[in-house]
Amino acid sequence: MNKDNKAQFAFGMVGLGTMGRNLLLNMADNGFAVTGYDKSEKMLQIFEEEGKSHNLKGYADINEFVESLQSPRTIILLVPAGAIVDSVILELQPLLDKGDIIIDSGNSYFADTSRRYLELKDKGIHFFGMGISGGEEGARFGPSMMPGGDKEAYAVVKNMLEAVSAKVNDEPCVTYIGAGASGHFVKMTHNGIEYAIMQLLAETYEILKNGLDYDNNQIQQVFESWNNGRLKSFLMEITKDVFLFKDVKTGNLLVDEIKDEAKSKGTGKWTSQVAMDVEMPIPIIDTAVSTRNLSKLKKLRVELNEAFGPTEKIKASKDFIDDLEEAFYFAMANAYAQGMHLLWKASIDYEYGLKMAEIAKIWRGGCIIRAEFLEDIYQAYKKQPDLQHLFSDANVQAKIKKSLKGTRNVVSSAISAGLAIPCFAAALTYFDTLKTGRMPSNLTQAQRDFFGAHTFERIDSEGIFHADWNQKNL
Amino acid sequence: MNKDNKAQFAFGMVGLGTMGRNLLLNMADNGFAVTGYDKSEKMLQIFEEEGKSHNLKGYADINEFVESLQSPRTIILLVPAGAIVDSVILELQPLLDKGDIIIDSGNSYFADTSRRYLELKDKGIHFFGMGISGGEEGARFGPSMMPGGDKEAYAVVKNMLEAVSAKVNDEPCVTYIGAGASGHFVKMTHNGIEYAIMQLLAETYEILKNGLDYDNNQIQQVFESWNNGRLKSFLMEITKDVFLFKDVKTGNLLVDEIKDEAKSKGTGKWTSQVAMDVEMPIPIIDTAVSTRNLSKLKKLRVELNEAFGPTEKIKASKDFIDDLEEAFYFAMANAYAQGMHLLWKASIDYEYGLKMAEIAKIWRGGCIIRAEFLEDIYQAYKKQPDLQHLFSDANVQAKIKKSLKGTRNVVSSAISAGLAIPCFAAALTYFDTLKTGRMPSNLTQAQRDFFGAHTFERIDSEGIFHADWNQKNL
Repeated sequence: MNKDNKAQFAFGMVGLGTMGRNLLLNMADNGFAVTGYDKSEKMLQIFEEEGKSHNLKGYADINEFVESLQSPRTIILLVPAGAIVDSVILELQPLLDKGDIIIDSGNSYFADTSRRYLELKDKGIHFFGMGISGGEEGARFGPSMMPGGDKEAYAVVKNMLEAVSAKVNDEPCVTYIGAGASGHFVKMTHNGIEYAIMQLLAETYEILKNGLDYDNNQIQQVFESWNNGRLKSFLMEITKDVFLFKDVKTGNLLVDEIKDEAKSKGTGKWTSQVAMDVEMPIPIIDTAVSTRNLSKLKKLRVELNEAFGPTEKIKASKDFIDDLEEAFYFAMANAYAQGMHLLWKASIDYEYGLKMAEIAKIWRGGCIIRAEFLEDIYQAYKKQPDLQHLFSDANVQAKIKKSLKGTRNVVSSAISAGLAIPCFAAALTYFDTLKTGRMPSNLTQAQRDFFGAHTFERIDSEGIFHADWNQKNL
Repeated sequence: MNKDNKAQFAFGMVGLGTMGRNLLLNMADNGFAVTGYDKSEKMLQIFEEEGKSHNLKGYADINEFVESLQSPRTIILLVPAGAIVDSVILELQPLLDKGDIIIDSGNSYFADTSRRYLELKDKGIHFFGMGISGGEEGARFGPSMMPGGDKEAYAVVKNMLEAVSAKVNDEPCVTYIGAGASGHFVKMTHNGIEYAIMQLLAETYEILKNGLDYDNNQIQQVFESWNNGRLKSFLMEITKDVFLFKDVKTGNLLVDEIKDEAKSKGTGKWTSQVAMDVEMPIPIIDTAVSTRNLSKLKKLRVELNEAFGPTEKIKASKDFIDDLEEAFYFAMANAYAQGMHLLWKASIDYEYGLKMAEIAKIWRGGCIIRAEFLEDIYQAYKKQPDLQHLFSDANVQAKIKKSLKGTRNVVSSAISAGLAIPCFAAALTYFDTLKTGRMPSNLTQAQRDFFGAHTFERIDSEGIFHADWNQKNL
């Protein structure tokens, strides 16, 4: 590969869809010499049109694209996760030199990233799995980015990533995440938390609408007032805006015209599946995943709704909305705590070397789950870098304690009324289990030994034991 | 391979551990000519000692073992799931002829079974994945068996399997399950349901012990009385017996001496992971899996117990135990319904051709989740073989309706008291979601379109839509 004066660009992008284009424009705004590659002439045209103030040019020929990059070449992929990533890497690989860098910025499954990382390491190419959060807006004006891979290669991209990222208190929302596939693992977990928070917002909507008979205007006001307090977050902010958005066609609020069947792209599911593999409990995220799947069963739901009848109204006390705010705070805190707990364990099991405080720090801005509460998480892990669980932090503990009474009132009221609040309930039962010093799992172990001779441990002596339960020592 | 008079046995077993030996003894009791193979001389000795009334002999040489079997050879594997199954198959394969049958009776992962099935099909060997439930006792005196594989080869083993299986109303607890890996898929789902029921029993124990201050004797009486009613089941039966079993060493009830950390072997986890892949909601099983993982966090639980303090007592009305029985019935019914729903979907996705009524029928006896309630399930699917969800059955519907009041009382009481009841709550919130005609998932879709341009569908017109939410059409 030649390295002559053709090599004029510092960074190249493969895939000029909205995300790829927006990130390139963001880089160009920050003064970086960038180019892009896409097989589609149409995408190239859109890119050059959008980037004309920076005089941006793209390539439809991958050889020319690669030749146009300065050494070490840094190529960002923003193509759909899955087989396409492999085929792009296969195309690029013979054109690259040792020391070149590929950064996969899609939502790739972390195990795929791990495999690709090792394959490319063999060829001397640095491979980064980098989660990007913030959607199209984030990519354009400042996302949160989670790059994982070779630490020494990170130096090549550090300045650029910090420049284009979101900022909180002038600090960039990007950091070197850790080894191997850690970047994609952390982004996956981010999305798991996102599923949980979104489901909690949906259940809040359900309580307000069907439990309290609030109209859309009143619902909007609740979300808006919460967004002015400690629940301030990107998701709260867009939720209040959703309830203001009128459909041009009907003049009604658009939210009322949308089907109640939630789609998903797999990152929430992966989070739950992997958590089960590493034996970490994240039931709020699991429940958010299963609830999306319940939403897909529309026909069955309508049938059973007719069979079992409607929900009742909540007998709400004067302070019920305050209790609901406490419940949201509590459940949200549990969702973040579960995600962080998963990361803590994954860092051990997969040897990622995650810095938990850094992760909380870069999630404070740019990403979908950015929220005031992340400052508390950041401070907790900054104080105790090896903290296993967020709820061991004294500051968080005090706030959780204060929120318990309201939370129990909301959950038991909704349960009595038959309102569906799977994630609120999962948050509370998770918490109640986590604070149970002696669980009833001794019975589970007795049963397993009874029917399957699976053995048990004792509280009074070390070792593995088996009893002949059928003898009934009466 | 020769087929001379050496071939004296109808069935051979690889693996003479307790399960393998017990199943062989069961077969011998039923008049079948059987033999076994194990590398371990010790296992062979135990086998021949236990089988001396039938004059049973085993082999330490795999060639002699295979030569001793009549054609088509039928070889049952009862070896630990995983790589050992592959290595045994690799050893056996060159010694077998086309038309021979291998039956893997361990708890193999269904995707492994699927792969092995296809590999052996290429060699002309019939491969069955056959789940066996009932533990060591079941294997010895009548298990429930779930064989999946080639239908024509099933004829060779049908009589033997029916003879050794458990019986309910003189009907055998075994049937041809379906194509490919269906046998192991159905057994996996059986175990998922088992996890859920066991966790519900543990939570009942928690409510009785810490919510109502019942002593072990009173707890035993509750389980015993329930086992005399509609909750009669194998797990209820052994649970009441657990609370009678005295530790020889201390004289105390053994259950109190057992550590509260539940182990697991993976089948529950697989059920949850696969259900997420096929998009079926089984949150009670998911929650049972995450609760076992919570039990493993003993040190953290003790710390948080000190931080957050103890639970409160339940303010129980006179009828609280009756309500608890209703709650158990309700949650148990939901657990079975989720498992059956998963099987219904898997049968479509994996083309298993499951007969749902047959599965409920063979679970009525022999297996760990055998229960009176399975008769209701059997009748429901017998009436409507293509029933999607158990709760569409009128009989079950009526019973669920009756149990709702008590269930809501138990769940909200436990939640108010801070008692950990993750699976009871998951059952109720699953049910409440499933009977929600219009879920709040329209908000989820609006949010996804807002931040990620993921599009949405409308209730008033067909198609895929996207809105420019940032415009705020006020």
